[in-house]
Amino acid sequence: MEYWALATGGAALVGLVVAFLYAKMVTREAPGDEKMQSIAGAIREGAMAFIRREYQVLAVFVLIVFALIAIFIWHKPVDVVEGKRIIGESTYTGIYTAIAYVLGAICSMTAGFVGMNIATKASVRTTHGAEEGGIGRALTIAFRGGAVMGLTVAGLGLLGLSVVYLIFVKWWQVVATPAGQASIITGFSLGASSVALFARVGGGIYTKAADVGADLVGKVEAGIPEDDPRNPAVIADNVGDNVGDVAGMGADLYESYVGSIVAPIALAATVFALSGSPDGVTRGMLLPMLIAGVGIVASVIATLFVRSKEGSHPARALNMGSYGAALLTTIGTLFVVLFWLRDVEAVKHPIGFWISIVAGLAAGLAIGWISEIYTSDRFRPVKEIAQSSQTGAATTILSGFSEGMESTAGAIILLVGAIAGAYLAGNWAMPDVANSGIYGIALAAIGMLSTTGMTVSVDAYGPIADNAGGISEMSGRPPEVRRITDSLDALGNTTAAIAKGFAIASAGVTALALFKAYTAAVGIDVIDLARWQTVVGLFLGGMFPFLFSSMAIKAVGRAAYNMIEEVRRQFREIPGLREGKEGARAEYARCVDISTRAALKRMIPPASIAVVSPVVIGLWDVQALAGYLAGALVVGFLMAIFMANAGGAWDNAKKYIEAGNLGGKGTPTHAAAVVGDTVGDPFKDTAGPCMNIMIKVMSVIALVFAPLFIR
Amino acid sequence: MEYWALATGGAALVGLVVAFLYAKMVTREAPGDEKMQSIAGAIREGAMAFIRREYQVLAVFVLIVFALIAIFIWHKPVDVVEGKRIIGESTYTGIYTAIAYVLGAICSMTAGFVGMNIATKASVRTTHGAEEGGIGRALTIAFRGGAVMGLTVAGLGLLGLSVVYLIFVKWWQVVATPAGQASIITGFSLGASSVALFARVGGGIYTKAADVGADLVGKVEAGIPEDDPRNPAVIADNVGDNVGDVAGMGADLYESYVGSIVAPIALAATVFALSGSPDGVTRGMLLPMLIAGVGIVASVIATLFVRSKEGSHPARALNMGSYGAALLTTIGTLFVVLFWLRDVEAVKHPIGFWISIVAGLAAGLAIGWISEIYTSDRFRPVKEIAQSSQTGAATTILSGFSEGMESTAGAIILLVGAIAGAYLAGNWAMPDVANSGIYGIALAAIGMLSTTGMTVSVDAYGPIADNAGGISEMSGRPPEVRRITDSLDALGNTTAAIAKGFAIASAGVTALALFKAYTAAVGIDVIDLARWQTVVGLFLGGMFPFLFSSMAIKAVGRAAYNMIEEVRRQFREIPGLREGKEGARAEYARCVDISTRAALKRMIPPASIAVVSPVVIGLWDVQALAGYLAGALVVGFLMAIFMANAGGAWDNAKKYIEAGNLGGKGTPTHAAAVVGDTVGDPFKDTAGPCMNIMIKVMSVIALVFAPLFIR
Repeated sequence: MEYWALATGGAALVGLVVAFLYAKMVTREAPGDEKMQSIAGAIREGAMAFIRREYQVLAVFVLIVFALIAIFIWHKPVDVVEGKRIIGESTYTGIYTAIAYVLGAICSMTAGFVGMNIATKASVRTTHGAEEGGIGRALTIAFRGGAVMGLTVAGLGLLGLSVVYLIFVKWWQVVATPAGQASIITGFSLGASSVALFARVGGGIYTKAADVGADLVGKVEAGIPEDDPRNPAVIADNVGDNVGDVAGMGADLYESYVGSIVAPIALAATVFALSGSPDGVTRGMLLPMLIAGVGIVASVIATLFVRSKEGSHPARALNMGSYGAALLTTIGTLFVVLFWLRDVEAVKHPIGFWISIVAGLAAGLAIGWISEIYTSDRFRPVKEIAQSSQTGAATTILSGFSEGMESTAGAIILLVGAIAGAYLAGNWAMPDVANSGIYGIALAAIGMLSTTGMTVSVDAYGPIADNAGGISEMSGRPPEVRRITDSLDALGNTTAAIAKGFAIASAGVTALALFKAYTAAVGIDVIDLARWQTVVGLFLGGMFPFLFSSMAIKAVGRAAYNMIEEVRRQFREIPGLREGKEGARAEYARCVDISTRAALKRMIPPASIAVVSPVVIGLWDVQALAGYLAGALVVGFLMAIFMANAGGAWDNAKKYIEAGNLGGKGTPTHAAAVVGDTVGDPFKDTAGPCMNIMIKVMSVIALVFAPLFIR
Repeated sequence: MEYWALATGGAALVGLVVAFLYAKMVTREAPGDEKMQSIAGAIREGAMAFIRREYQVLAVFVLIVFALIAIFIWHKPVDVVEGKRIIGESTYTGIYTAIAYVLGAICSMTAGFVGMNIATKASVRTTHGAEEGGIGRALTIAFRGGAVMGLTVAGLGLLGLSVVYLIFVKWWQVVATPAGQASIITGFSLGASSVALFARVGGGIYTKAADVGADLVGKVEAGIPEDDPRNPAVIADNVGDNVGDVAGMGADLYESYVGSIVAPIALAATVFALSGSPDGVTRGMLLPMLIAGVGIVASVIATLFVRSKEGSHPARALNMGSYGAALLTTIGTLFVVLFWLRDVEAVKHPIGFWISIVAGLAAGLAIGWISEIYTSDRFRPVKEIAQSSQTGAATTILSGFSEGMESTAGAIILLVGAIAGAYLAGNWAMPDVANSGIYGIALAAIGMLSTTGMTVSVDAYGPIADNAGGISEMSGRPPEVRRITDSLDALGNTTAAIAKGFAIASAGVTALALFKAYTAAVGIDVIDLARWQTVVGLFLGGMFPFLFSSMAIKAVGRAAYNMIEEVRRQFREIPGLREGKEGARAEYARCVDISTRAALKRMIPPASIAVVSPVVIGLWDVQALAGYLAGALVVGFLMAIFMANAGGAWDNAKKYIEAGNLGGKGTPTHAAAVVGDTVGDPFKDTAGPCMNIMIKVMSVIALVFAPLFIR
C-alpha cells in the first residue's frame, strides 16, 4: 500500500528531470556579446551573493528551530483523541519531526537556488534571443527559464514529502499512530514555510528598496530613464527582480504547495480512522500526494503547449499552458480519486472529493480573474484610478485604496463559496464521518495548487523578461529589443497577479484545514469564540498582519532612503556620471550592498515574531491560540488581496497613462500616477505577498508545537 | 427598588437643565457685526437645511425598521435559557421594542439638532469674543457651545433609558422576564445606533466632499488661501464642520453612550438571575444607569473647572475639565457600587466591579494617549512623516500608512488588557456565577463613557473654534482674531483624536458584551470557531469594514469631483470672482447643494448593508452570525484606529511643516505633506469614525432580531 509513495516520488522525479533538460536548453543558448555578458554577470553575482548571505542567516535560524523541536517535543507521549475519547497513544518523537523540518528547509533553499541560478542565465539569453529571433524566440527562452523554477519547486516539494513518508512511515516505522506520522510530515512543511517567510520578506525588502530608491532619485530627481546605466542603483534594481520575484516567489509557492499537501495528510489521520477499512488511513494520507503527482505530470505535459506562433499574442501561449495543465489535472484526478477510494467503506461517493478538488481549482482561477479585473487596464478600476490622477496624487491614492479594498469583497465571496462547496461535497463523499467536510476543504487547496509546476513557470518568466529588458537597455541594444521584452514583461504583471491570487486563496483554505488539525492535536472539541481568551487571541491575531505590514513597509522606506542618499552621493562625487561621460562609472556594488544589508537585517524582526508568537500564546491558552490563528487568517487574507490588487492597479494605471492616455508621460497626471505606483510597490511586492506565508507559518508552528500546549 | 430609575432620570435632567443654561449664556453673547452675522447665517442655514433633509430620509428608514421589528418579533414567545436549561418563558412583545426603538432614534435626532443649532450660534460669537475679549473669552464661549451638545447627548441618552425602563418595566410591566425587559431596552439602543450610522456616514461624506473639493481647487489650482470668500465651496466647507464634526460626532457618542449602558443591562438579565437575592436582577440592571448618572453629575461639575486664566494655555483648562470629570466619576462610582450591591448574595466582592469600571476608564484614557503620540507633532511618528515628505508624496503616504498600522498594536494591547482585567475583576466580584466576568467587561465600557458629557463638550468645541476661524477670515477680521481661533482649533485636533479613541475603545468592549448577550438570546452555549459556517461568517464579517470603507471613500471622491467641477465652472463663468473684484459673488448655495445631495444619496447603501446583512446571515445560521460579528469587530476596530491615527498624523505633519519646519509652506516638502493630509481626510473623518458605529449596529441588530433566528 505505502509503496504508492514511490509512484508519487516517481512523478516528482519526472518533473525534476524535465527541469534539468530545460536548464540544459537554456544554458545552451547564446549569451550575447561581451557587454551584455558583463552586465548580466554583475546582476548574477549580486543575486548569488545575496542568496548566499541570506541562506547563512537562514541556516542559523533553521538550526535553532531544529534544536527547539528536538528538545521540547522529545519523546512526549501524546494521546490520540477523537472527540473526547482517547483512541490510542503515540510515542511521538520530536527528533523525527525536527529532521523532517531540516529536510523541508533544505529542499526549499535548493529550489530557490537552482531556479534563480537558471533565471539569471536565462534573462541575458532572452535579450539575445529577442534581438536575433524576435518575440517567439524570446518567449521560449524566458518561459523555459521559468519552467526550471516551476518544475524544481513542484518536483522537490513532492519528492521530499515522498521520501519523508517512505523513510519514516513505511520503512523505519518510527511512530505507531497516524497522528504521529502526520506530525513528522508537518515538520517538513514547517521547514518550507520558515524558509519561505524569510525569503519573501528579505527578497521583498531588497527588491523594493532598490526599485523605489532607483526610481525616486533616477527618474524623478535626475530625470534619467529607467534601467539607465548612469543610475548607480540600476544593478541593484535588477538583482532585486531575481531575489524578490524569482527566488522569493518560488519559495512562497513551494511553501504553499507543500502546505496544501500536508494539511489533508494531517487531517486524514483522524478522519479516516473511522473509515471502516483497514488501509483507510493510509489511503487518506496518500491521496493528496497522488493528486500532486497527477498535477506535476500534467504541468510537464502542458509546458509543451507553450509555443508562440509567429504573429499570435504571447498571452495565448501562456494561457494554453495554464489552462492545459488545469484541464489535464481535472481529468487525471477524477480517475485517481475514483480508483484510489473505491474500496474504502465509509467513502460512499468518492466523486464528492473530486468535486472538492475542482471547487478549489475553480475558486483559484476565479480569484485570479478578480485580480485581473482590478489590475488590468482593460477594466473600470484601473481606468478610474488613471482618471482620478487628473486631480492630483491624493485622489490617485484614495482611488487605488478604495478599489483595492473593494476587491476583497469578490475574493472573499469566492473563497467562502469554495469553502462551503468543498465542505458539503466532502461531507457527501463520506457521510456520517466527523470532519470529512474539512478533509474536502483541504483537498480544495490541493486542487488550487496541483498545477504549481505550471503556475510558477508562468510567473517566473515575468521577472526574466523584465531583467532581459534591463540588460537590453544597459547594453545599448536597439529599441525594438526593448519593445519585445517590454511586451513580455507587461504580460508578466498579469501572470504575477494571478499567481498571487492562487497563493493567497490556497493559504486561506489550507490554513483552515491546519486549524482543524490543530484542534484535533490539542484535543479540544470546540473553539469557543464566546470565551474571553479566544477573543483576546482573535484581536491580537488580527492586529499582527497590520504590525507585520507596517514593519515591512518601514524597512523598505528606510532602505530606500539609504539608497537615495548613496545615489545622490555618487552623482555628486563621481565627475561626469550624471551627464553620462565616457569613463565615468557608477559604483554599482555599493548600492547592491545597501540593499543586501538592509534586507538581511530587517527581515529578522517580523519573521521572528511570526514564528515565536504562536508558541507564546499557545503556552498561555490553547483556545486563545486558535483565536490568534483565526484573526491572523482573516486579516492576513484581506490585506494580501487588498495590497496585491491596489499595488497592481496603481502600477497599471501608470502604464496606462504612459501608453499615451490622458496626456501621457510628462504631464502632471502622469506624475500623480507615479506616486501611486511608488506607494503600491512595497504593498504588492513586499508586505502583501508575505501575508499568506505568515498565516501558514503560524498555523504550522501551532500544529508542530501542539504537544507542548497540552497539560 | 425600580424607583431608583427616577434618580438616574433626575441626574439626566440636571444635565439637560445645565445644557439649557449654557445655551442661554451662549445666545446672550453679542453676535458681531452685520457681515459676520450674514456669513454665520449662511453657514447655519446650510447646516440646518442639511440636517432637516437628512432627518427626512432617516424618518423613512426608522419607520421601516419600526414596522419590521413590530411585525417580525410580534408576540413571539421566547424561552429564557441559561446554559442549556430553560428557566422560564417570556411573551416577548416586539411592539414595545419597536416603540423603544423609535424613542431612541428621536432622542438621538433631538440631541443632534439642539447641539448643532447652538454650535452654529456659538461659532460667530466665538469670533466676536476673540476680537473683543481675547483667547479666554473665546475659549469660554466655544466651550459652552460644546457643552450644550455634550450635556444634551448624555442627558437625553440617560433620560430616555430611564423613561423606557420606568414605563415598560416598572409601570406597565409589559414583559415578565428580565430577558424580555432587556430586549425592549436594546430597542432604544438600536434607535440610537441606526441614527448615528446615517449621521456619521452622511455627515462624513458631506464634510470631506466639501473640504477636499474646496482645498483641491482653491488652494492647489486657484492659489487662494483657506476660507477665502472667493472660493464658492467655502460655505459648504464650514457647513461640513457642523454637520460632520458636531452633529455626526454627537450622534456617534450618543450611540456609544447608550450602547455601553444597554450592554450590561442586557447581560444582567442572565448573570444576576443566579445572584441568590430576590432583587438581584433589578440591581444588576439598574447599576449601569446609576454609574451613568454619577458620570453626568461629575461632568456638570467639571464644566465649571474649564476656565482659562489670562496667560495660561487653553489646553490646561480643557484638561482640567476632562481629568476632573474622570476623577469625580472614579470616586463617585466607588460609593455607588459598594452601596448598591451590598446585599446581593452572590456578589462577594463588589469592589471587583468597580475595578472593572476603572480598568475601562484607564484603557480609554491610555488609548487616547496613544492617539496623541501618533498624531501630535511633539512625538516621533509625525516628525518622521514630515521628514519623509522631503522625498516626495509617495514616501509621505507610505510613512503615514505604516505609522497608522503600527499604532493599532498599542491600542489592541491596551484593549485586550482592559478586557482581561475587567473580566478577571468581574469574575472575582461574583465568583461561581457564569458570565460575571463578561458583566465586568460591559461595566468597563461604561467606565470609559460615563464622562461622555465632558468628552463631547471638549470635542464639539473644536469645530466651533474652526468655524469661528472661517467666519473671521471671510468677514475680514484682523489677523490676530484668526490666530486666536487657530490656536483653539489646533487644540481641537488633539481632543478629537482622544474622543475617537474613547469611541472606538468603548465600541470594542461594548460589542463584546453585546456578543455574549446575543449568544444568550439565541440560546447557544458556545460559538464554535471550528465549524465551517462560523469561519465563513468570520471571513464575511472581516471583509465588511473593507467594503464599507471603500464605499465611503469612493463617495467622498465622487462628490469632491463634482464640487471641483462646480467651482471651476463658477471661476470660469462669474467674471471677476477669482480676482476678488467688488460685486463678483460666488454662488455658495450651489456648492452646499452638491454636498447635501451627494451625502444623502451615498450614505444609504453602506448603512443599509450594515443593517440588513446581520439579519440575512442570522437567518442562515446563528453561529455564522456570531462569526460575522466577531470578524467585523476585529477588522472594524483595527481600521478605526488605523484610519484615525494615520489621518491625524498626516494632518499634523502638514501643520508641522506649515509652522516653518523643513522649509515651511510653498516648498515641495509641503506639497507632499498636503497630499498626505488630503488622503487622510476621508480616512479620519468619513470612513474611520463609522467603524465603531457599524460594529455596534450589527451587534444590536443581531440582538434585537435574535428571536427570529431561533427555530
